[in-house]
Amino acid sequence: MKTDIEADILVVEDNDSERESIVEALQASIQDVNLLAVSDGEQALDYLFKRGVWKDRAGNAPPKLILLDLAMPGADGFSVLGQVRSLEPEEALTLTPVVIFTDSQATGDITESYRCGANSYIMKPLSFPGFRTIVETIGQYWMMHNQVGV
Amino acid sequence: MKTDIEADILVVEDNDSERESIVEALQASIQDVNLLAVSDGEQALDYLFKRGVWKDRAGNAPPKLILLDLAMPGADGFSVLGQVRSLEPEEALTLTPVVIFTDSQATGDITESYRCGANSYIMKPLSFPGFRTIVETIGQYWMMHNQVGV
Repeated sequence: MKTDIEADILVVEDNDSERESIVEALQASIQDVNLLAVSDGEQALDYLFKRGVWKDRAGNAPPKLILLDLAMPGADGFSVLGQVRSLEPEEALTLTPVVIFTDSQATGDITESYRCGANSYIMKPLSFPGFRTIVETIGQYWMMHNQVGV
Repeated sequence: MKTDIEADILVVEDNDSERESIVEALQASIQDVNLLAVSDGEQALDYLFKRGVWKDRAGNAPPKLILLDLAMPGADGFSVLGQVRSLEPEEALTLTPVVIFTDSQATGDITESYRCGANSYIMKPLSFPGFRTIVETIGQYWMMHNQVGV
């Protein structure tokens, strides 16, 4: 794995085929985007906080978008979100847009995601074309239209 | 003005022609949507908190989307956002998606918007076709894809 990347988008998804589909859809629909896709919350936190294999990674800028699954072994989506949002207010990472992308339709998960500081909550469509289309929509909205402060 | 509406989208925009364009673009791109468009923050707060002319309005559900200008006479966008987000955590309104839609390109305004709890920050395009397209994009993303907890 390349560890000298400064990611525009951080994808956190434990399902291998879904993670690959997400990466393909984002790369196909957004030009010149630096993507990092990891398979669990611990790796995401290591990248974001420059720890472990990422301790010497390039740059300090947070991603412009974190696309975050909820249910994952180890550190789950809530854990990642909680640690990102509990930083001191002057940390740029506290303001990074986080989109929850999950199978869960549970109202409790939706509510908890927003309370923990998620910007948006999108349910994964069951069909492959639908899955790809919604990932493109998410990528385009947050990377081409939404503004981040830093 | 109809005061018995329960709005799916609350548009808060002081510029008359921009407000009309926003309403037209949203109505054309989203089926069966209840829209309320007001021209300042005070009216927005009156609607959201069922005060003034809205004290007997239908329903208690918060909008699924608040599209909020920043610079407005009287209560500005930050004031509306601050009052919505400072409610007790169990209030559904605290979780309502708020998209800032503004002329301001100032990094300070972007940062402050996220710190105050905005979900997204979109700059108004200068061209009319661009303006209409981005409003459609915002409406479709938040009304057709994003999930709200209640």
